[in-house]
Amino acid sequence: MRALRVGDGTTSLVEIMAPEPRGEAVVRVVLSGICNTDLEIARGYAGFRGTIGHEFVGVVEEPGGGAIGRGQRVVGEINAGCGACARCQAGDPRHCATRTVLGIVDRDGAHADLLRLPARNLIAIPDGVPDEHAVFVEPLAAACGVLERCPIEPGTSVAIIGDGKLGLLCAMALARFAPLLVGKHPEKLALARGLETATVADARRRGHAFDVVIEASGDVSGFELALDLLRPQGALVLKSTFHGATPIDAARIVVDEIRVIGSRCGRFAPALDLLARGAVDVGPLISEVVSLDHAEAAMRRAAAPGVPKVLLSR
Amino acid sequence: MRALRVGDGTTSLVEIMAPEPRGEAVVRVVLSGICNTDLEIARGYAGFRGTIGHEFVGVVEEPGGGAIGRGQRVVGEINAGCGACARCQAGDPRHCATRTVLGIVDRDGAHADLLRLPARNLIAIPDGVPDEHAVFVEPLAAACGVLERCPIEPGTSVAIIGDGKLGLLCAMALARFAPLLVGKHPEKLALARGLETATVADARRRGHAFDVVIEASGDVSGFELALDLLRPQGALVLKSTFHGATPIDAARIVVDEIRVIGSRCGRFAPALDLLARGAVDVGPLISEVVSLDHAEAAMRRAAAPGVPKVLLSR
Repeated sequence: MRALRVGDGTTSLVEIMAPEPRGEAVVRVVLSGICNTDLEIARGYAGFRGTIGHEFVGVVEEPGGGAIGRGQRVVGEINAGCGACARCQAGDPRHCATRTVLGIVDRDGAHADLLRLPARNLIAIPDGVPDEHAVFVEPLAAACGVLERCPIEPGTSVAIIGDGKLGLLCAMALARFAPLLVGKHPEKLALARGLETATVADARRRGHAFDVVIEASGDVSGFELALDLLRPQGALVLKSTFHGATPIDAARIVVDEIRVIGSRCGRFAPALDLLARGAVDVGPLISEVVSLDHAEAAMRRAAAPGVPKVLLSR
Repeated sequence: MRALRVGDGTTSLVEIMAPEPRGEAVVRVVLSGICNTDLEIARGYAGFRGTIGHEFVGVVEEPGGGAIGRGQRVVGEINAGCGACARCQAGDPRHCATRTVLGIVDRDGAHADLLRLPARNLIAIPDGVPDEHAVFVEPLAAACGVLERCPIEPGTSVAIIGDGKLGLLCAMALARFAPLLVGKHPEKLALARGLETATVADARRRGHAFDVVIEASGDVSGFELALDLLRPQGALVLKSTFHGATPIDAARIVVDEIRVIGSRCGRFAPALDLLARGAVDVGPLISEVVSLDHAEAAMRRAAAPGVPKVLLSR
């Protein structure tokens, strides 16, 4: 089968053996999405070697003992826990100490013809949700995950920093709180239909006006801006992973008694619900759909400035 | 009157005019404590110019319209708010946007013969608490303030990093949670009587074992150690102010979904209660009591390695 693999500093589409079930489910991938994390991994982040990709829609080929039968259209939670530790037993493998993560940690990923995941990780896709929307479940779940770590009350003033895919998905996921989306690119901000947007300078002019600021730009300037926008004792939710040591004015966190809250993966159910209800329209985020055969070029394309989501078809 | 003043890069004991009440209370200082923040301010932190010092015990000289009468022994909350904003109206001036702070922000401080504070900031000291203990109310309140920002349930595993005054006071204030105090100086760790202590290496060997870690070392190495000690989704309480940009591995905060919680000042009542009940014995923290006449030398002494609390008598 085809697989987009990272190793020895290169990212190449190669032919490899199809995965054996080994007690897990095997899924035939229909569509996969290129995430910024894929680009980071291709640059060496996290030291991963293997097939990348963790956003996918597929069809069950081997149920692997799970309740979801062959032929069912599915998405899959990307953290595969040991199944035995307290966190896994409580139904949340996202912080299992020995977890593997699809296409990120010790587990081949989704930019391939087939992938393997524990059957319990698979979730059937409601009929009304097309593949091109369902493939956004993982990043949309990460956006919804903000609320798992930082519950937001109605009436809370929320700003989101970053007009990339992550920032836009956070804005969509939290639209009911009427957030202000802050970014540098008018053409990207325009994708946040119906939401209020602002340039960095405009946002800064509002002063310390926000109860919650979500940092989704991945740049240290976004962290600084967040501190400029937050009221004392406000919450700064960190969504994007910064690489290497980030110079942070920690004294401001202490003096203004800010809470900085790390947020990584979210549960899929709330995201699937948003898509099924049509409460979120991810369509405008898709810039192009490219055959897996051209995955290497698609990766370069996804890394270009101003390109939202590139999908890989089979 | 005498006052220890910072300005133009020097710290000097000088004669200045006694403060006029101007609608506030005037207190004759009996004893004041030298805090690390005083040392930082003397080095230029926060750009303060004026009389330093914010830990004190005194006797009311002018009640300033308050309920506490002349001659009463008092301590005083250091944040003086505008009295009119929502935060002040709610009884908490600690984040009033136009607050002054005794000896720290736009308000002459306690290393003097007299100081001025709003009458509402003063709190009478219970008879059983000697001056030498009451002078610790402000830093002990800051230690108790951890619980305002990060409520701790019984059974929570807590580590405190830093065996300086702040770390020791945090350990005393949180003794009922049986914290592990982590430090580099056996002679300082020994001051945490009855509490479990560990060297940095010993603590690190426990792995990600703690639900809550309190950083009170003021060094970036303490921040890194905290991340090494915390379990996923744990809470890192930042007590000490770091100066300048601190290089922090922000990706770890995101991946492990850590909460980093800034904590500055605490309310005085819980700290006074601990002292009045004898639940905390700050006596071992006092290294020496020096006359205000020798305040300049006392500042140098307080900056020496291994010196806990230096008090200035009148």
